[in-house]
Amino acid sequence: MTTDVNSADFASVRELAQQLRVDSIRCSTAAGSGHPTSSLSAADLMAVLLARHFSYDWDQPDLPTNDHLIFSKGHASPLVYSLFKAAGVVSDDELMTTYRKFGARLQGHPTPVLPWVDVATGSLGQGLPDAVGVALAGKRLDKLPFHVWVVCGDSEMAEGSMWEALDKASYYGLGNLVAMVDVNRLGQRGPTELQWDMDRYKARVEAFGCRALVIDGHDVEAIDGAMATATAGGDQPTVLLARTKKGKGVSEIEDKEGWHGKALPADLAETAIAELGGVRDLRVRSRVPAAGAPAIKPNAAAKVTLPTYELGAKVATRKAYGDALAALGARPEVVAVDGEVSNSTHSEEFKKVYPDRFFEMFIAEQQMVAAAVGLSVRGYVAFASTFAAFFSRAYDFIRMAGISEVDVRLSGSHAGVEIGEDGPSQMALEDLASLRAVHGSVVLYPSDATATARLVEVMADTPGIVYLRTTRGAYPVIYAAGEDFRVGGSREVRRSDGDQVTLIGAGVTLHECLAAADELAGEGVTARVIDLYSVKPVDTGTLLRAVADTAGRLVVAEDHYPEGGLGAAVLEALADHGEPHRVAHLAVRHLPGSGKPAELLDDAGISARHIADAARSLLKT
Amino acid sequence: MTTDVNSADFASVRELAQQLRVDSIRCSTAAGSGHPTSSLSAADLMAVLLARHFSYDWDQPDLPTNDHLIFSKGHASPLVYSLFKAAGVVSDDELMTTYRKFGARLQGHPTPVLPWVDVATGSLGQGLPDAVGVALAGKRLDKLPFHVWVVCGDSEMAEGSMWEALDKASYYGLGNLVAMVDVNRLGQRGPTELQWDMDRYKARVEAFGCRALVIDGHDVEAIDGAMATATAGGDQPTVLLARTKKGKGVSEIEDKEGWHGKALPADLAETAIAELGGVRDLRVRSRVPAAGAPAIKPNAAAKVTLPTYELGAKVATRKAYGDALAALGARPEVVAVDGEVSNSTHSEEFKKVYPDRFFEMFIAEQQMVAAAVGLSVRGYVAFASTFAAFFSRAYDFIRMAGISEVDVRLSGSHAGVEIGEDGPSQMALEDLASLRAVHGSVVLYPSDATATARLVEVMADTPGIVYLRTTRGAYPVIYAAGEDFRVGGSREVRRSDGDQVTLIGAGVTLHECLAAADELAGEGVTARVIDLYSVKPVDTGTLLRAVADTAGRLVVAEDHYPEGGLGAAVLEALADHGEPHRVAHLAVRHLPGSGKPAELLDDAGISARHIADAARSLLKT
Repeated sequence: MTTDVNSADFASVRELAQQLRVDSIRCSTAAGSGHPTSSLSAADLMAVLLARHFSYDWDQPDLPTNDHLIFSKGHASPLVYSLFKAAGVVSDDELMTTYRKFGARLQGHPTPVLPWVDVATGSLGQGLPDAVGVALAGKRLDKLPFHVWVVCGDSEMAEGSMWEALDKASYYGLGNLVAMVDVNRLGQRGPTELQWDMDRYKARVEAFGCRALVIDGHDVEAIDGAMATATAGGDQPTVLLARTKKGKGVSEIEDKEGWHGKALPADLAETAIAELGGVRDLRVRSRVPAAGAPAIKPNAAAKVTLPTYELGAKVATRKAYGDALAALGARPEVVAVDGEVSNSTHSEEFKKVYPDRFFEMFIAEQQMVAAAVGLSVRGYVAFASTFAAFFSRAYDFIRMAGISEVDVRLSGSHAGVEIGEDGPSQMALEDLASLRAVHGSVVLYPSDATATARLVEVMADTPGIVYLRTTRGAYPVIYAAGEDFRVGGSREVRRSDGDQVTLIGAGVTLHECLAAADELAGEGVTARVIDLYSVKPVDTGTLLRAVADTAGRLVVAEDHYPEGGLGAAVLEALADHGEPHRVAHLAVRHLPGSGKPAELLDDAGISARHIADAARSLLKT
Repeated sequence: MTTDVNSADFASVRELAQQLRVDSIRCSTAAGSGHPTSSLSAADLMAVLLARHFSYDWDQPDLPTNDHLIFSKGHASPLVYSLFKAAGVVSDDELMTTYRKFGARLQGHPTPVLPWVDVATGSLGQGLPDAVGVALAGKRLDKLPFHVWVVCGDSEMAEGSMWEALDKASYYGLGNLVAMVDVNRLGQRGPTELQWDMDRYKARVEAFGCRALVIDGHDVEAIDGAMATATAGGDQPTVLLARTKKGKGVSEIEDKEGWHGKALPADLAETAIAELGGVRDLRVRSRVPAAGAPAIKPNAAAKVTLPTYELGAKVATRKAYGDALAALGARPEVVAVDGEVSNSTHSEEFKKVYPDRFFEMFIAEQQMVAAAVGLSVRGYVAFASTFAAFFSRAYDFIRMAGISEVDVRLSGSHAGVEIGEDGPSQMALEDLASLRAVHGSVVLYPSDATATARLVEVMADTPGIVYLRTTRGAYPVIYAAGEDFRVGGSREVRRSDGDQVTLIGAGVTLHECLAAADELAGEGVTARVIDLYSVKPVDTGTLLRAVADTAGRLVVAEDHYPEGGLGAAVLEALADHGEPHRVAHLAVRHLPGSGKPAELLDDAGISARHIADAARSLLKT
């Protein structure tokens, strides 16, 4: 029989904690895998939170005034799901029969296939940075009084991203953020670096600008007091440093090594459940928050007047990005973050017009992407920008955003050898490959300002991880305002019935392809030129037509290393069609240095003369 | 006329600092780009270091007892190269005519094409973590008294990786590490987050276990005192927090916004040089260290007895990795780092035998890779291991290691949907694409324990970034001990003259291909099966032979997203050969969840039955 937890009574809350422990053991033992011991250590924290501080309408997970709860230590999923059971939204049957099973929503690590989960976690050090984005939205945009609660592991405090998060949380005065660190002393393979050195944790947290409250994480009254302090108001984020024991409550495993990530065998589970007082069926209803609406009302229908550019004018696509983003700001839900390079990426154009919707993340690309993820969780259309090369710093965050299936827009400037003098550390030459490989991603690489501006607008309404690669230098505008560009599209910039060879480029190499086509035309060779600006998904139809029309002769030129980029996109598209084709693939095949853009493009073998040469060679075969 | 700096005389050191400023301005103005203002702020630090504390034989950059100097703020390359000029190893002519020019070694950001540069920098937040690896080698392996000096920018203190570095530096007692933070208050687009809040910096540094010395970074005597303190001995790393002014010494630009990354126009440069006292030609010879040899003497010829496995026995390739690494430990230069998952990656097998050459980096993958880079700088053969998915956390570090052209070996376990119940956050499904796209990388993905063991041995002597992907589950040993596996190789596991179709797999999918071949054989269809364990470079010859022998019918199955992985490797290899082929490419095309490995392989469409189906379809066309 289900009994309601009396939240005013700490004994009742303690019972709830024991239920969370028992259920964590039960479901993981039933699954044969999982992390029960990491769940047991945080059970008291969750019982107090759920019964006495969490403000949430479980029947309306999308209520704007709901608190948020993010398990940065996603491996404690038995605790997450036991908590959902206690809240009445997951049945005991679902918990016991589906956890970690094929096709189930109760996966090994929580993901947003569950309506009460904001972001996928399981790669440590990401839940807290994501939460900073959610709290930022709440405080600076929504202006709603909800709190963001985050359960962190102690092991993950070794990840630099956690300190990027606390730093930004204090910088932005996120008093609505409460991180709870479950300091259970034991990691996967043994003791953590700081074990129970609570003073050291405290000093670090305070040095990074947050309030640190050290508590016994198994003392429900102490937890309650700390949570009350944390939510009493003010602009300082709070970190509850909870000293806990892994496997708490089960004498055979409590504070013992060798039990990380292991389900208890059936016999031990039985003993453990008995020691914990047996199976309970308590139900806790969290306090339902008052209704309220975010201060910003999205308006996807707002009139956006895109910038226009004169044909032939030289404009950098990164500038067009900034211009278009500023135009897109007419939609109040559009927000931007940048990694201290807004004058290079040109996101400063947006900042100039909408300073309240621009958030500087300084040089912390992981937190920058996480902030975009968190803002997206709250429904904002978030654009994040930095040098294309530096998105590699946040690759794991982008990967996890893909698993969260959130919508974030990334704009990477300064791609390829085209950047010139700054040299290889600043050249993105692997971004097309790495970003294409992310689940649900879209990769765009326009060659002129008109296409860029339109694609920035398209990005706003494109789901998933949408990556735009922009170019440093200024190149001629080749498309008239109002022309159509779309995800999965391409443009046949040169086309005739008698085309003998196809030249395929994107971004800067499209201009080289055009010059090569001119050179070939002078020799009586007509070349089709395709602007393959949508690198993923790619326009297979246009490519197949080119194969058919030009006797399978394709030249692909890309300002990228040879693996996994534009060339691979073309080849993958043609792979199973069987039409004979021969692809001359020009890419950056040795480590570049510094130099002028034209020198480096030529040295890499991706300039017009190399493209023309490749076409000539194909025509000889 | 060249004058020697009198290092005992601070006035002389001040002159040296002015020369470094003047030369930084001269070379960047000559180049038309660069970061002079970021160089001027750190000039006093470098003058004192070079004249009074740096222990280095400029004629023998490889001397084992030399100090190391790493510019974590690599954009201050004008200062780096001006310093090399002052040391007499770069001429004024080279500085003035080649900086940032095509083909020059004085690139926009320093790289190890220069013999005095350990690692490429320019992606902020990496030089200090790399330096931790160098200092770790000095203290724990070489046992030599050299110091590692690091010049850090204040902006890059926002990168979490800097805190991972200080944390590990203190954890490992690296008293031989001296970081100098050039707190010049201004970033690229405006003030830094903490500006001149030296107390806050100090609190953070101390909380992370290092000694913080706050100084006026333009007071050469104060700098000197701090450097003396830093090198006086003990196990605590030191961070000099130097309050400086960007553009110091040139009134028009000093401490002014809008001058980041801008060369001074010729007229302003002239005024500035005059204000700084004009061009000088001072030469400083650093103190030459005593000779000394590292405590560990490499022995690539040491007898390594690889583990052997019985044919048919089920062994996980990750276990074979650990076994082989332990065997390879017979070579004293082999060292290992891991990210707190050594019991999963099996690097613990090495740790058990060689605990002194194993370094736990806890859950800090960026620092883990950086440590491997730093150890490699000191000549060690470093292996780094974590879950394959979590190398994505260190992708920028791997990218930069590629630019450094250092040799590091990465072993990523738990790849693909094969891992099962833990779900997508733990599944590397984009690692083949992202690692293939790194400059100079090698990507290996063996399917059995025998091949793995041999390839681990091969990795030790393979230059560049060598990535090994291992599998979680245990699969049958299919190769006899002593069989040959090599970078760029493959195995035709099934082969006959009448092969009708080719099945290509690697790792877990090779076993699925074998099962599919059995299934097809039952229908009278003979399939060639290729184990394409060397994903990069790929064995083009064997692939072309398969195209020729099996009428261009290829099935490629990979436990990876469709973009940029094994399929792309095959397609890229065949791209320009023109032989007609049709590739059925089976890959993970939707977001997986939890489940049993076999269920997930089948659900992803990469199991034996799907491979057999794809072969049947190809045979119909």
